[in-house]
Amino acid sequence: MNPEGTVGTLVLLRHGQSDWNEKNLFTGWVDVPLSPLGEQEAHRGGELLADAGLLPDVVHTSLLRRAINTVNIALDVADRAWIPVRRDWRLNERHYGALQGKDKKQTLEEYGEEQFQIWRRSYDTPPPPIDPDDEYAQTGDPRYADLGDAMPRTECLADVLERLLPYWQASIVPDLRSGRTVLVGAHGNSLRALVKHLDGIDEQTIPGLNIPTGIPLRYDLESTGDGELRPTNPGGTYLDPDAAQDAIAAVANQGR
Amino acid sequence: MNPEGTVGTLVLLRHGQSDWNEKNLFTGWVDVPLSPLGEQEAHRGGELLADAGLLPDVVHTSLLRRAINTVNIALDVADRAWIPVRRDWRLNERHYGALQGKDKKQTLEEYGEEQFQIWRRSYDTPPPPIDPDDEYAQTGDPRYADLGDAMPRTECLADVLERLLPYWQASIVPDLRSGRTVLVGAHGNSLRALVKHLDGIDEQTIPGLNIPTGIPLRYDLESTGDGELRPTNPGGTYLDPDAAQDAIAAVANQGR
Repeated sequence: MNPEGTVGTLVLLRHGQSDWNEKNLFTGWVDVPLSPLGEQEAHRGGELLADAGLLPDVVHTSLLRRAINTVNIALDVADRAWIPVRRDWRLNERHYGALQGKDKKQTLEEYGEEQFQIWRRSYDTPPPPIDPDDEYAQTGDPRYADLGDAMPRTECLADVLERLLPYWQASIVPDLRSGRTVLVGAHGNSLRALVKHLDGIDEQTIPGLNIPTGIPLRYDLESTGDGELRPTNPGGTYLDPDAAQDAIAAVANQGR
Repeated sequence: MNPEGTVGTLVLLRHGQSDWNEKNLFTGWVDVPLSPLGEQEAHRGGELLADAGLLPDVVHTSLLRRAINTVNIALDVADRAWIPVRRDWRLNERHYGALQGKDKKQTLEEYGEEQFQIWRRSYDTPPPPIDPDDEYAQTGDPRYADLGDAMPRTECLADVLERLLPYWQASIVPDLRSGRTVLVGAHGNSLRALVKHLDGIDEQTIPGLNIPTGIPLRYDLESTGDGELRPTNPGGTYLDPDAAQDAIAAVANQGR
C-alpha cells in the first residue's frame, strides 16, 4: 500500500469550518461544532480520500468535536468508519489563552496589527493566560481531568509542538512504522506544529505557513539513520492542490 | 458515579433504523447506512443519556456503520464525542447467511411461518450459509482480513453468544471493573446475546426478547463470588420505558 522504501503514509486533515470560524472568533480549546459548510468540507475530504484510494488503517484525533466529527464524516464517506480510533488532548488546537471567545476583527482594531499578528503567529509569544473563571476556560471539563497542572492556560506554537511531540513519538510513529496509513484529524496549529517537525521548517518561516481545512495532506515517510521519520515528499501532497492553494490564500486574510 | 456496591455501569444502545430495516430486508453483516429516522433515533438516544446524566467514559462498537454512526451521533449530543473508542467484529449483528439481502415478507411467504420463525428466532439453528460469491458475502472486506477461516458464513444466536463472550470478558468487563460507565453500540442480536448472558435467560425465553432501537438500556453491575458480573437491576432499565414498550411491540410484528 505504501510507496517503495517508505515505512508508512501519514494523512493530515484539518477540521472543516466551525461555528466560530464562521463568526471570526478565536476558538482554541472551546469545543464548538462544525458549521454546515464544515460538514460539507468533511464530506469532500472523505471523497478525496476514496478517489485517491488513500484509505486510512487507523485514525488519531484531538478531543475537540470539530476534529472528531470531521473525521467521522470523512471516514464514513470513504467506507472506513470501522478503523481503530485513538484520541488525545495533545492533538488539540493551540490554547488561545485570554483571546478565546474574542472577535478577531475587534481584537485587531483594539490592539493593532502588530500585537494581533504576534498573538496569532509569533512562534514563542503566547497570548495572556485565560482566567480560570472565564466562561471559556474549560475549568472542570471531565475530558481534561487527568491533566491537572499540565492543563494549559495559554499556548504559543512552540508550546504546542512541545506537548504534541511526545504523542507523535509514542503513538503515531509506531502506527506508521507498522506500515499503516495513519489519518490525523486535528487543527490549524497542531498540524502546523507537526508539519514544522516533519519538514524541518524554521521558526521564522512557520508563522507564514497555512494549512487549509478539509483537504487531506499526504506525507510518505521513510526511516532516517538517526531513527526519525522523514517525508519522501517534503511539504506533503494535497489531494486537491488547486483547492488547497485557494484556501491557503483565504486563511492568510483572516481578521482583515 | 456508580450506585453503591456496583463496579460499573453498562449502557446498551441498539442502532437506529437503517435503510434496510426500512425496506424490511435481512441485513446481518451487510454494512447499510442509517435512515434519516435512524439518525433521529440516535439523536434522541443522546438526549436521553444527557438528561439522565448517564455519561459514558468509554464506548465499544461493532464494525458496522449503523452502530458506529448511532454512537457518534448520540455521543456528540451528550457532549461525550471525545471518549475512548474500541471496535470489534465480535459486536457485529448476527450473520444472516443466505438470507442477507432477502426481503423478510417475501421470505415469510416463500418458506412459511414456521421456517421463517426458525431462521429469525431459533436459538441454535442458523440459516443456510451464504455463498462466498454472493454480492452480500463481504468476501475480501478489509475490515475482516484478520479473521481468515473464523469469518462466519451464517450464524444462529448461540453462535453470536459464543463469539461475543471472549470480547465481553477481555475488553468490556475490564472497563466496567475500573468503575467506568461503558456504552456498547451494537445490534438487535448481539445485544440479545449479551442480555441473555447478563440476565441468565434460558434458550427457550431469549427468542421472545426484543430490544428496541435508539433507547439506552442501563445495567448496574456488581461482582459475584465466582468473579462474574451480575446486574443489580435484572432486565436492565430503559431510559425511556414507555417508548421502549411501544418499540418492543413493533419489532415483534416485523415480517407481518
